[in-house]
Parts: sequence; structure tokens; C-alpha cells
Amino acid sequence: MSRVIRVQLETGKIYEETVPADQILIAGRALTSKLVAEEVEPTCDVFGPSNKLVFAAGLYAGTTVSCGNRISIGGKSPLTGTIKESNAGGNVAHKMGKLGIRAIVLEGLPAEEKLQILHVTKDTVKLVPADDYKEMPVFQSADKLRQQFGEKIAISMIGPTGERKSAASGIANTDNEGRPARYCGRGGLGALMGSKGIKALVLDDNQATGPEIKNQEMLKNVRSSLSKEILQNEALGRFTKYGTAGMVDVTNNLGALPTKNFSRGSFDLAEQINGNKLHEVITQRGGDGNPSHACMPGCVIRCSNVFPNASGKEVVAPLEYETISLMGSNCGIGNLDIIAELNYRCNNLGLDTIDMGGAIAVAMEAGVIEFGDGEGAIKLMEEIEQNTYLGRILASGGVRTGQVLGVRRIPAVKGQIMAAYDPRAVKGLGVTYSTSTMGADHTAGQTVRMPVEHHSPEGQVETSRKAQITNTMHDCIGTCLFVNGAFANHQEWLGEMVTAIHGETCTYEDLQNISKQTLLLEREFNRKAGFSDNDDRLPEFFYTEENPDSGTVFDVPEDEIRKIFDF
Amino acid sequence: MSRVIRVQLETGKIYEETVPADQILIAGRALTSKLVAEEVEPTCDVFGPSNKLVFAAGLYAGTTVSCGNRISIGGKSPLTGTIKESNAGGNVAHKMGKLGIRAIVLEGLPAEEKLQILHVTKDTVKLVPADDYKEMPVFQSADKLRQQFGEKIAISMIGPTGERKSAASGIANTDNEGRPARYCGRGGLGALMGSKGIKALVLDDNQATGPEIKNQEMLKNVRSSLSKEILQNEALGRFTKYGTAGMVDVTNNLGALPTKNFSRGSFDLAEQINGNKLHEVITQRGGDGNPSHACMPGCVIRCSNVFPNASGKEVVAPLEYETISLMGSNCGIGNLDIIAELNYRCNNLGLDTIDMGGAIAVAMEAGVIEFGDGEGAIKLMEEIEQNTYLGRILASGGVRTGQVLGVRRIPAVKGQIMAAYDPRAVKGLGVTYSTSTMGADHTAGQTVRMPVEHHSPEGQVETSRKAQITNTMHDCIGTCLFVNGAFANHQEWLGEMVTAIHGETCTYEDLQNISKQTLLLEREFNRKAGFSDNDDRLPEFFYTEENPDSGTVFDVPEDEIRKIFDF
Repeated sequence: MSRVIRVQLETGKIYEETVPADQILIAGRALTSKLVAEEVEPTCDVFGPSNKLVFAAGLYAGTTVSCGNRISIGGKSPLTGTIKESNAGGNVAHKMGKLGIRAIVLEGLPAEEKLQILHVTKDTVKLVPADDYKEMPVFQSADKLRQQFGEKIAISMIGPTGERKSAASGIANTDNEGRPARYCGRGGLGALMGSKGIKALVLDDNQATGPEIKNQEMLKNVRSSLSKEILQNEALGRFTKYGTAGMVDVTNNLGALPTKNFSRGSFDLAEQINGNKLHEVITQRGGDGNPSHACMPGCVIRCSNVFPNASGKEVVAPLEYETISLMGSNCGIGNLDIIAELNYRCNNLGLDTIDMGGAIAVAMEAGVIEFGDGEGAIKLMEEIEQNTYLGRILASGGVRTGQVLGVRRIPAVKGQIMAAYDPRAVKGLGVTYSTSTMGADHTAGQTVRMPVEHHSPEGQVETSRKAQITNTMHDCIGTCLFVNGAFANHQEWLGEMVTAIHGETCTYEDLQNISKQTLLLEREFNRKAGFSDNDDRLPEFFYTEENPDSGTVFDVPEDEIRKIFDF
Repeated sequence: MSRVIRVQLETGKIYEETVPADQILIAGRALTSKLVAEEVEPTCDVFGPSNKLVFAAGLYAGTTVSCGNRISIGGKSPLTGTIKESNAGGNVAHKMGKLGIRAIVLEGLPAEEKLQILHVTKDTVKLVPADDYKEMPVFQSADKLRQQFGEKIAISMIGPTGERKSAASGIANTDNEGRPARYCGRGGLGALMGSKGIKALVLDDNQATGPEIKNQEMLKNVRSSLSKEILQNEALGRFTKYGTAGMVDVTNNLGALPTKNFSRGSFDLAEQINGNKLHEVITQRGGDGNPSHACMPGCVIRCSNVFPNASGKEVVAPLEYETISLMGSNCGIGNLDIIAELNYRCNNLGLDTIDMGGAIAVAMEAGVIEFGDGEGAIKLMEEIEQNTYLGRILASGGVRTGQVLGVRRIPAVKGQIMAAYDPRAVKGLGVTYSTSTMGADHTAGQTVRMPVEHHSPEGQVETSRKAQITNTMHDCIGTCLFVNGAFANHQEWLGEMVTAIHGETCTYEDLQNISKQTLLLEREFNRKAGFSDNDDRLPEFFYTEENPDSGTVFDVPEDEIRKIFDF
């Protein structure tokens, strides 16, 4: 798994490099951030020729290690202006692993405006004209791509909003069954891909034999121990049953469930959108519905789901906590069918549901529609489908929507809308939002399951620091964060699997160090891009407006927060 | 002139302070920036309760010193996030001087949404309900205000876009004849005024006797010498004849006239919009037209003008160089009648013509309308009048318009569109745009008339430094920058007039020091707000895309630029 494919879009030239022997442990986010930090001018125009878009597989890519095939995508973010890595499940990284590809780098800008597809097989890498895909929605495009390139491909692609360079656009990746619904949603990387004129990467691993495993026996043993551990783990069992939606009750009770544009932390209709309700609706409706679905080859947690309509026909897969809160409670919408419909429309347009939930809630605060108006929210999605100016505003994300509409309360850091945890009630996440190299992002340092009093300012910096290092470590390995619990008593497994696959001795310490170096490298990029310690803050209202359901403001001392990267 | 009026909008309480004796030289921009730096949290929500809007008169306010009655308005900018001061001519500062008022400070937010007017007379300062002015255009509002408060008032006010908190909104000030057309345009301070719910300050100096002049004889002598010097000054004579539009030929010849969204530096229709043409059209049409008009009491330069339509009826006053370029050449529009119409509509809506010219050109680059489509540009202004979503996008300024529409080339620094000098062809202004505490702004350090080879990178940092210090000094005194030439051989006059008026010995050195301290204070505010040296840059394309008409890129060495504030 040592191929690095570079696509120079100005000339159309494609060339390949081999990962140097001393860089064999640098994969996933470690690799996207290294390439971006080394090769992209931090102050560049985000849509200019010097920005790059990097797709990188993780260290377990191509194997069936549970939760081990996430795809990392990185560049300078059109949304935040910071360095960015966004990762997702699905089957793209698995096929990259089979093809022996560690990274694909899109460089430069095409000399003339056009749409292309990058088609990768065992033997060839080609740019294919794709103007007939212009403005085509994500699901229709995926079907057409399969007609054109075969059924067994993996796809990483953008929708119409990415082509329009709308900054809330993500990159959709196919799941095990070919649904283009595993999103690298955050940071507007879909807009960056659109600026490069690339509609899709298409990966065909037919006859590919990778990855070459250096110690099959060792891998088999550790992998099997990991799978057993996951299946025995009670907390992970709840993920299997309720998916991430199990979090609704947790945050609602903490007063941390974003409600009506972060004006409250509990939602009176929470029971209509929680994990129990989701499980009940999916199982009662049957049909295409599936409460427990694996997004990646080999995953035994299966926290994903397939949400059907009343007739049992699939609406969206998966329906997850962040979307349920941002497009649900945060918009005052307590109806899973409407949330599922909004989610599907985001997926089909190519949009991040978190920033779009933020945008709709901010538009509600501006009076465009009322809080709780689900039908109105669906009409807003139609505005984007029709590419109206209101649609353009919304698709540019929550911050720009708020700026254009003159809204004061915009729950965002560094241009990116917060995830579904009110930082006044889960203060460790407030620290993560403030300091993450990625802008407000829960996956950058998730503290909600960590042993800390979430309403207290005490210990939150240390908690966020640990979470940021551990989460970044998983991003660098290419593992799903949810599997972390299974390693609690077996941290050595993480390195042992690397050793087994790559033949290079790797310890947990090594992986932690790669994570820390990655964070510091990202932070240095941001510093050169103009960010400073004084940007590491929440919007003022979180310090001054009490969250009525947690009874708290954000009050973690700033001088402590400033030390978070002292490691 | 020692009254400072503070209006606490949450409670409606108004209280007064007296300028301390040791602060008597701190006026104009020195005072707005001092109050903002000391009292506003640099990271505050711009539309939140802790931002403040400060109106400050200069050191000569209330006298008839030529060019000496500019009004400074400051706060944390809704457009740039930096500290902001924007100043204008007109009669507002003169009436403040007559009323003995040095500053008016709007603080906090009203408890409920409403529109009010601050009415100031010799004896009273009152908040007056103004919901009947809601969404009323600027000129109609001014007429209604005169009906309500009398003919002789001075007004500082916002239009509909300021009420909507659109970030390209400025604050209009009445001129000598009561036209609300002298704009503190830049930085979105109109949106900040809108967030405070204040439609207008109304100043009535009936029976006011200020300012108390400490040495009438001395003032009379220096003032009279200054007026003579101005009248004998050949360069200033050209201002009198051609207004600022005389600059069109200068920049067109330098390749520095922004053309079609800063893609060129010369415009093939320049002769249709230059100073000769403007003078010719105004004089030939007659009627209301006036090629040489004074915007402030006492001004003998009279660079302003009144532009009539073909029937001789006034369209706009004044029509100035920055607007002629940004809404003309930069949009490919070579027609003074259309530019005048666009200018009037901006004035009536409450918008900065520079940022709006930038926004229209960026929209043209996005394909909303074609470059050169003057009728289309007028329709875009109608979109704002009708408050459509396209109108909202445009009124939020050039940068946000570009972001929402997915445009790569946005000619701005720190969120603010550049003025009418291509920084590749007038490189001193490139240094000013990059480093100004206010974002891209020509008045922050105008180098075009300074003795330097504009196409060369040599000496530009020193040139911009001198210009920034001198321009800021005039902003602190409250004098028009154009009068600077008249002080070339008589710098001592600037301080002598202060001594004559205030009885406090003041030298040119003192004024230069106040300027330098103000710049450093502003820079420190910005640093606390999250800005760093790495933000002191032009957009990437100015370094990489050659301006075909100057044959240059921007290439002033960054290490030199970083030393500009070492004084």
C-alpha cells in the first residue's frame, strides 16, 4: 500500500510516487495534513491553483479489521480557511488498500472549466470527461457511474452544491452496498473538489490483490481478539442496537441537546427523535428498514441504520445523532420522518448535515421560516435543489447564512457550525470546539463519554487534550472512533495490527506520537494562515447567555485553554 | 467641546461625561479607537450588547477652518471583525462642535427590537421612537426628520440595509445643504448602528454657542493663511475643477484603474468616465449641476460636485473617483449616467459604494450578469431595494457575495473590498491594504500622490508608513486628507490651530505621536481579536496573476512589510 497518485489538473498529467520507507506509518489524517502542510501555501486562495485535495487511506485499509477502513480527505478548507481533514466510513479506503494506493492528490486547476472523473483500476489511472454529470444529484450520479464503470466500484464524489463551490458541501463515499451516503461532510471539501472540476473518484479493485500483509497469522489473531472484544462490550452493544441516536437521551438530560439555534439544551419533543423511537420506528416499519447496519467492510459494531418510510421503503441510511439534533431539535423539529427527508436531500445535494442544520436554524432565527416548521425546512432544501439565491445562501453554511441575514447568534468556531453538543453543558467539547485545528468539530476531541463532570469547568482542558490526541490517532490509523472502547484494556493491539500488516514495528506510543505531531503540524499551518490563540474561542453569547436547561455558561478559564497544545 | 454623551440602549438611560483635561487632544479617530479599544471586548459578537458605536468630532470641529469638520465613527466592524473608524465630511461634526460635544457613544442593545432616533439640542438629549421610519430610504427619511425636528438639523443616519444589518452598510451624514450623502461608508458601521436600533442622530445647534475658542486672533490668522495657501495650490486647484475624478486618467495610465473585477488596470472606456468628461457633462447640462461644491462648512477646496441628469435635475452629489471606478470600470461600465444612478441608489439604501462596486463585479464574475451590463447593475440595486435574497447577498458586501456565489477572485483584505487602485500598479497602496488596521482601505495610507515609482517594489513600505501616519493624523484632527498638500511648507499650522482653539500647546510632533499611538492601539485591538501578521496579505492572485496593463504583480517583500509598524 505504497502508491501515491498525483493528478495535475492543469496539464491532465498523472504521475505516481512511492511512499518512502521511513514514512510507512504516515497514513490517513497524518498523511493528508502532512501533504497539505508541506505543499499548500497556508494563505492561498482556497479555490486557486495552489490548494490541493488529498484522499488518504489509513493503516488498516484493505483488510477486514473491524472499523478499520475510514477514508481521510484533506486540504485548505473553503469553509474555515484552516487546514482540514474530514473522514468517513464506506468502502473507498478498502478499495484503495486493495489497489495498493495510500493517497490520491488532486493538484492545480483545469485550464478550462469542465467536469471530469478520475477512474482508477488495477492497471490504469485516467481522467474521463464527465460534463454529462453536471448538476446531477449524488444518487443518480452513483447509478450512472455504476452503469459506466461497473457495479463493483467504490465512489468518492460531490453533488451539485460541490460543483457550485458552496462551502457547506461535503464529499460522499459509497458504503458496503454502494449507497453514496458516507460523508466527509465537514469543512467544505466538496466545494474544493468542485473547484478542481472533479465530480468523482471511481475505484475499481477488480483483480487487485493488495494489501500485501506482512504477517497474516499475527493479523488474524489480533483482529479476531478485537472482534470478540467488540461483541462483548456492553457500551458498543448499545451502539449496535440504537446507533448514535442513543445519544439524544444523554444530551437531553444534560441540557446539552442543541435546541432552537442553541437557545436551549433540552427539547420538549426529544422522545420523538431519540434512540428508542428510532429503533421502534425502523423495526415496526420493516421493509428496507434496518436498525443495525455496517457501513464498512468488516465492521462488527454496525451502528449505522437504514431508515424506511411508512411503506417500508428506504428514505436514508444512516440517520445519525448529529443530524437528528442539528436538523431536528436545533430547528425545533421533533419528527424523524421530516429529519430523514432533510437528511436524504442533503445527501443527494452533496451537503454536510451539521452545517446545513445550523444554516436552517439560523435562517429560522432570522425569521425566514418559523422554528419547528418541518415542511418549511424541506422547502428550503428545494431552494437549494433549484439553485435559487436563498438556496445559495443556505448552502454556503450556517455562518455565511447568518452573516448575510444579519443574525447575531451564530453557533460556530472558525466559520464552522458546532456539532450536537451545547458547549455550556459538555464543556470538554467547548474546549475542543475552541481549540481544534478544524474549527468547531466534535470528532476532533469527543469528551461526552469521558469521566468528567460535564457542567463543571474543572478538568475539561485535560479531558479535551486527551480526546483530541486519541481521536486524531484514530483518524491517522483510519479507524472509527467508536471502536476505541474495545481497545481500553488492549491498547497494544492498535500497534500490533500495524506491525502485522506493514512489517514495521509499531507501538501504541508511536501512534500517539504521530497524532501529536499531526496536531502540532496542523496548528502551525493555521498559524501561518493567520489564526492565533485569540481565535481559539466560542462566540461571545456562550460566555454570557445561560443555557436554561443546564443552568450554565461556558466558563473554562482561558489561560488553561491556551495550554492545551503544550505536549 | 468637552461633552461625551453616552446612550445606554438597554435601559434607555443617557448620561454625560466631561473629557478629562489631559485628554483634550484626543479627538476624531484617536477618540473612537481609544474608546473602542478600552471598552469593547475585541472578540465580542459584533451585533452583541458589548459592541459600541462611537461618533467623535475632530479638534477643529465647530470652527470654519477649511476641511476641518470631518466626523469620525468607530466600533468593532461587522464587515472585517477589526477595529474600525470611518470618517466623512458634511455638517455633523460642525454641529457637534457648536454643541460642545466631542463624542456620542451608543452602548448595549435595546431590550426589545425597536427603532429610535437620538435627538440632541443645546439643552436636551433624548431617545425618540422611530418605528415609522422602518425600512425608509435615506433621502425620504432625511426629509421626514426635517419635518419632525426642523430644517436646520444635521443628521447622521442609516438606510434600510443598515436596519437589516447588511455588512456593506455605511452611515450617511448631511452636507451643507442637508443632503444625506456624505458617507462613513466603509466597514459596515451602518449595520452596527442598525443592530443598536438607532435610525438617526439628529443634531440641532439652535442657540448653541460653542466651541469656545481660546485664542480667536491666532485662529483667525492661521485659518486665513491656510485658506490662501489652498487657493494658491495648483494641485488643489485641479481638485476644485475636476473633483476626485481627475484620478481616472492617472490610474488608467498607470494600469492601476480597477477594471472588470481587478482583472485589468486600464479601461477602454476610461475617457467616458474621467475628470474631463465629468466636468464637461456637469457644465454642459447646467440646471442643478455643479462641478465644484463644498461638502463641509468652510471648505475652500470644494472637490465635491452635483451631478445632474440630461434635464439638469440632480441625480447624485457627489460623484467621486472611488465610485466611478468601483461601480464603473471595475464593472466594465463606461457610462457616467449609470454610475451616478447606481451611486444614488447606494446612497438612498445606505450602502458603501466601494464594497457594493466590488460585490457587483464579483457577481458579474460569477455570471449573475455580464460585465458592462449597466441596466443589469441597476436591477441588482432593485433587488436590494426589494430585499430579495440576491439583494441580501449583495448588500452583505463583496467578500460574502463572492463566498456565497463560489467566486475565486475576491479583491479584498480582512473582509473589505479594495478601493480604486490596483495594488500591483500602485504598490504603496498594496502595502497599505495589506497592513492597515482597517482592512483594504485607500484612505488608511494613500500613496498615489507620493514621490515613488508606483510599479517598483522599492521604498513602498516606507512610503505607506509615512502615508498611514499622516492620514491617521488627519483622521485624528478631523481634517480632510486633501488639505494635506497645503500644509507641506507649514506643518506647524496644524498644531497652532489646535493651540488657538483649545488653549493647549500642540505641535506637529504631538499630532504625529497621537497618530502613531492610535495606529498601535488599533493594531493591538486587532491582535486581541485574533488577527496576526499572517493576515497582513493581499489575496493570492495579486502575487501570481500579472496585471496586463501594468505588467506587474505585487512583489513588495514580506519581511519588509512586517516592519511597517516598527516606529
